[in-house]
Amino acid sequence: MHISEIDTPAVLIDLDVMERNLRRAQEYLSGHGIRLRPHMKTHKLPEVGRMQVELGAVGLTCAKIGEAEVMADAGITDLFLAYPIWGAEKLERLVRLAERCRLTVAFDSPEVAQGISRAMQESGHEVGALVEIDTGMGRCGIAPGPEMLALCRTVADLPGLRFAGIMTYQGHVAGSTREREAHMQDENERVVEVLDCLRAEGLECEVVSGGTSPSLFLSHHLPAVTENRCGTYVFNDRNMVSSGAVSWSDCAMRLAVTVVSNAVPGQIIIDGGSKTFSSDRCGAWEGYGRVVEDPDLLFLKMNEEHGYVRRNGSTKSHPVGERLHVIPNHVCTAMNMHDEVWVHRGEQVVDRWTIQARGKLR
Amino acid sequence: MHISEIDTPAVLIDLDVMERNLRRAQEYLSGHGIRLRPHMKTHKLPEVGRMQVELGAVGLTCAKIGEAEVMADAGITDLFLAYPIWGAEKLERLVRLAERCRLTVAFDSPEVAQGISRAMQESGHEVGALVEIDTGMGRCGIAPGPEMLALCRTVADLPGLRFAGIMTYQGHVAGSTREREAHMQDENERVVEVLDCLRAEGLECEVVSGGTSPSLFLSHHLPAVTENRCGTYVFNDRNMVSSGAVSWSDCAMRLAVTVVSNAVPGQIIIDGGSKTFSSDRCGAWEGYGRVVEDPDLLFLKMNEEHGYVRRNGSTKSHPVGERLHVIPNHVCTAMNMHDEVWVHRGEQVVDRWTIQARGKLR
Repeated sequence: MHISEIDTPAVLIDLDVMERNLRRAQEYLSGHGIRLRPHMKTHKLPEVGRMQVELGAVGLTCAKIGEAEVMADAGITDLFLAYPIWGAEKLERLVRLAERCRLTVAFDSPEVAQGISRAMQESGHEVGALVEIDTGMGRCGIAPGPEMLALCRTVADLPGLRFAGIMTYQGHVAGSTREREAHMQDENERVVEVLDCLRAEGLECEVVSGGTSPSLFLSHHLPAVTENRCGTYVFNDRNMVSSGAVSWSDCAMRLAVTVVSNAVPGQIIIDGGSKTFSSDRCGAWEGYGRVVEDPDLLFLKMNEEHGYVRRNGSTKSHPVGERLHVIPNHVCTAMNMHDEVWVHRGEQVVDRWTIQARGKLR
Repeated sequence: MHISEIDTPAVLIDLDVMERNLRRAQEYLSGHGIRLRPHMKTHKLPEVGRMQVELGAVGLTCAKIGEAEVMADAGITDLFLAYPIWGAEKLERLVRLAERCRLTVAFDSPEVAQGISRAMQESGHEVGALVEIDTGMGRCGIAPGPEMLALCRTVADLPGLRFAGIMTYQGHVAGSTREREAHMQDENERVVEVLDCLRAEGLECEVVSGGTSPSLFLSHHLPAVTENRCGTYVFNDRNMVSSGAVSWSDCAMRLAVTVVSNAVPGQIIIDGGSKTFSSDRCGAWEGYGRVVEDPDLLFLKMNEEHGYVRRNGSTKSHPVGERLHVIPNHVCTAMNMHDEVWVHRGEQVVDRWTIQARGKLR
């Protein structure tokens, strides 16, 4: 089947580009002695999770228990849940996961630590635990200091938990390559200070989890991080290109769409809006995606089923019924809008995968 | 089961409020001799679609064929597809729908008209057809004028299509109630002119489809519209309240979430971000939703699984594990992120519905 026969809107994955992305990241990180534990939230696909592990990843990172369950069902045996788990129903599911996987959890509060500890103790299990620290992102995580130390000590003492280290997130690292490098080196100093401080208390960190895709190939400037949990690198997207980290030819995921109206002058309407792309904006650039066939076009606005694309200087004709391909701003949130992907090599469809971990909110 | 026992994040529907919203809209429109054909994209629920029809709606409006298929399966026999249908696969499904429903379609191009005509003719069916005209929204629709007239004439001549009238969309109507009223009255004049023009050509419009939820109760200022396809009125949301059309007590849908971190000073993190709420912004107000228990809080930022809520002057304590309820900016896109809703009266859960028409992109 040729990719032009797929009904739109639809997610297309270029397998050659994706495999190249996977190999390049694994080789780079292995070359620097950093373990790769990719975040599966980007692809949500068992098929890709297995490929990542086969290529050398030590396991996968998940946010929600439902995501971890899908990956455990797919045969992944080493999972990191990088999200604070709270509540009876989730703890029960966490115990069942611990029965079949090597599991690590993360949190930044004694409340969450105690809840997981109790559930594990009662069921006779133990999970690895990372304490999340905040080194500038300002999302989750305790700032380095006495409170952080106290939580690490609590974790080391709690039954059912094995203190395994710390987790950080460098989502705030931005700017030019030179600025990012400097930022990563600063970050490294902060993390090393924390590690020294913990060591002085007798707490060794077997794992320091960190990393992001835009700064992936600068990770050697942050050698204190032992496990990189980048996600987006598998497909890349418009945000990644705008960050300067990759180029358009590294983008493995596209949305196939169709022009359904061009009645309003200076504009075409494509059959995908926020229900197809998500309404995530691009950090650096205007608009919601890049139209591969005509990059002069500006994908300026969206309703749920309508993408408003301004001609914006383009002189090409775009008749009703024309098929276009769009690289989305944020591939993780775009993937989450779909139930399936079409996998192709060149222009031939070679497979169709169900996005099994889509919409796992709990 | 008490609503506090539902694991988060989760969609909660207050049945009493929803039923009041449905009845009020039906009574108002019936009182003004306007037919109601609600857009099901807001709820995506067969249960609610059936209620709307039982209360007096003439049928439902859908955007995508997959949505219409769900509603036809639910026993709704009169459906309007307010979206240009293009491509062999969709046309085949359209024919199958026409076999079991009274179907009306809409478009703004001869290409789409001819495609549907051919498919209907070949299968021996006929569907009603509305020509979409643009009265200022600038999305789909032909501007009133000779080209529009030509398309209406083409439709009247094409086999398999029955010219049934026109469709407009008043999504651009905004401002104070007085400004909206004036805008609706202008709009009415424009539509009446089009109708006169069509009548002079011998083309009678049995249907003029229009309307939006924010201007629902001003529809008597636009009497030329015979069928209102409002959607959001069923649940309402923060956008609707910010438009001045309804109040918080009219909001029937809330997201139950849990505080999972408060480690960063001045901030709490809830277990729902863009994967739970969608990243749609509010037209008029800052932030992504209203926290019912503490409206002083500002839901300022989102990642996929993290909602960043600033304390913003609130003096209440928000410990890890606390359950909160949030009214989203845009209920249609928020509903699309979920697989199920919990239906309650007061604080007791009375049902759990699968969002059967979620994610129907084609």
